[in-house]
Amino acid sequence: MNATVVTHEMGRRISGHRDRFQDLFEAYFRSLRGSWDAPELSRFAPEALDRVEELALRGGKRQRVAFVYEAMNLVPGTGRQDAVDTAALSIELLQAHLLIHDDIIDDAPTRRGGPSTYYAYRDAIPDRPQHALGLAMLVGDLALTLSLQVIADAALPAWMAQSMTQLQLKAATSTFLGQIFDLERDFLGVPDEDLLHSVCDYKAARSSALAPLQLGLLAAEQDPREHDESLRRYAWAFGVSGQMRDDYLSLFGDEKVTGKPASADVRDGRVTYPIRMVLLAASPSERKVLESVLGRPDASEVDVDNVRQIIRDHRVDRSLLTAMRRYADLASREAATWAGWGEAESVAFFRDVPVWGIERLL
Amino acid sequence: MNATVVTHEMGRRISGHRDRFQDLFEAYFRSLRGSWDAPELSRFAPEALDRVEELALRGGKRQRVAFVYEAMNLVPGTGRQDAVDTAALSIELLQAHLLIHDDIIDDAPTRRGGPSTYYAYRDAIPDRPQHALGLAMLVGDLALTLSLQVIADAALPAWMAQSMTQLQLKAATSTFLGQIFDLERDFLGVPDEDLLHSVCDYKAARSSALAPLQLGLLAAEQDPREHDESLRRYAWAFGVSGQMRDDYLSLFGDEKVTGKPASADVRDGRVTYPIRMVLLAASPSERKVLESVLGRPDASEVDVDNVRQIIRDHRVDRSLLTAMRRYADLASREAATWAGWGEAESVAFFRDVPVWGIERLL
Repeated sequence: MNATVVTHEMGRRISGHRDRFQDLFEAYFRSLRGSWDAPELSRFAPEALDRVEELALRGGKRQRVAFVYEAMNLVPGTGRQDAVDTAALSIELLQAHLLIHDDIIDDAPTRRGGPSTYYAYRDAIPDRPQHALGLAMLVGDLALTLSLQVIADAALPAWMAQSMTQLQLKAATSTFLGQIFDLERDFLGVPDEDLLHSVCDYKAARSSALAPLQLGLLAAEQDPREHDESLRRYAWAFGVSGQMRDDYLSLFGDEKVTGKPASADVRDGRVTYPIRMVLLAASPSERKVLESVLGRPDASEVDVDNVRQIIRDHRVDRSLLTAMRRYADLASREAATWAGWGEAESVAFFRDVPVWGIERLL
Repeated sequence: MNATVVTHEMGRRISGHRDRFQDLFEAYFRSLRGSWDAPELSRFAPEALDRVEELALRGGKRQRVAFVYEAMNLVPGTGRQDAVDTAALSIELLQAHLLIHDDIIDDAPTRRGGPSTYYAYRDAIPDRPQHALGLAMLVGDLALTLSLQVIADAALPAWMAQSMTQLQLKAATSTFLGQIFDLERDFLGVPDEDLLHSVCDYKAARSSALAPLQLGLLAAEQDPREHDESLRRYAWAFGVSGQMRDDYLSLFGDEKVTGKPASADVRDGRVTYPIRMVLLAASPSERKVLESVLGRPDASEVDVDNVRQIIRDHRVDRSLLTAMRRYADLASREAATWAGWGEAESVAFFRDVPVWGIERLL
């Protein structure tokens, strides 16, 4: 198959999973409302569920959902549809939790092309920012309990529900630790590359790639621990590659595609992969320019363009593209080893998706 | 038995449970460290566990812990010690989560006689308040996953672990909805008493009284749904009585005993039970005074004393004492009906603890 055919086929598969899941997700929220025990006299408490729903349904390409279904399909036989659906719901609800809290941490006004939950409350009660903060935090907490409730309430064998719960709790805990790590690296000078890899692994790869793989296998009644090391290597390389892509796009991407301003990382002072690379490569005078712009919320477009120019001057943009392709290739080669036990079509999915995930956006 | 003997016996029982639990709680954190998977290169991520531990071990009288053990002892036979211990750990970890997030919502510097987690981070990184907020929020998130992880990791029958998880998820969800409701009532004028009861039920009674009762019964392999309505009535009346006591103490209590300034509710503009009562009873000129002080963070001690005086002039303090005793009595009478199925000593505990909980502090 040539690259265009792969791209077309991959897009078709992912949107197929996404569309099917969207119906399931809407039905989940409808049914939840039937058993929803919110205080009757309150206006904001019942509305909290609307906030979770609104953000959750505003999903993007749903890469995690595709992963969980394709992971189930790796295992010969049919798998349990109810189990994989439950896993997909849990994953996307956990993701909603992570996004809601992340947007408070980052003080981010937008998410997925709409207002963040935090800023939706700030708009609704403009004279009470502290209340808006509290409400958004609690709505995030709610999404976390929902992501586990959906497993506890599903009619799954108790052993399977318990394993799913454990995997999701581990994914959530890892992500929290990764987010803490992520906050800390902002004030520790120029970090080693290993440190950025580790942040990415904990903060993103475990909940977005590893857990969906594990949960998909579990839904097919396969013990994910049998392939633990390989799944981790895949998730890690896929995650690093995706993080490098996001870092690249946050400097050079189209805001309409990425959904966030193409200079947010610079103004927030995030020491991303490319910022790290350019800080190491810069001359003393360039470094002065960089340090005068990075982390300045009021930096002008001209300032940010200066940073971009220094990055280009050192060919950091090219090096980053090379590196992200190398990690995508590493993930692909890991997935290729699954041919020994996995169904060919799904092995091909995991083999091709890392490169697809980069090329479709560049 | 006369009242003094009851008081002495109750104090002895509660501190017996507390001391035993404290050893268990310390051992839990030690053993967790053995399996703790935090990023090695991070300083703050491993430390996050210390923050949870530090706050969790700084517990007060551990009423929830006493409830879960006494609830197990209601059921004839021995019960499962491992199950009741797991339940107690889960309850106190959930409580740590609730306190950490609550102190962000309330922007509260202190908790349990020490710094709140939020303010501990603000002190540690004074030039980065937004990072401190994010770190505290994530440490709270972590405590929530730990409170469920402890159940998932215990060697309990899968059905029991699943029921415990469901009960704790319901308790957490109810509390979040109650906290949302609580934030909203601050800007809805003078609420009905029913509304305050409902806030209290969702925000406190379900996680602090109902869930410990349910989990204790479950640890004795009894289905808590058999007594669902009675347990709910008890938890509700006990919770309302306790909330009225806390509202009273936050106006007239000794800061050294309550651990928070005796005027915080006034300065924060909380429409508590007594504030509601005095707003309804006040003359137009008194109401003017009240409205000029309530919700003013910089109100002076004289201002707050004026509020206290208006409350006393309308005998709202006396009415509140009468009401909290009435609800405590309601809870006692509910517990007395458990004599039909529960062990006498534990029935007596639940019958006496509502009154004890008030009188020991007044």
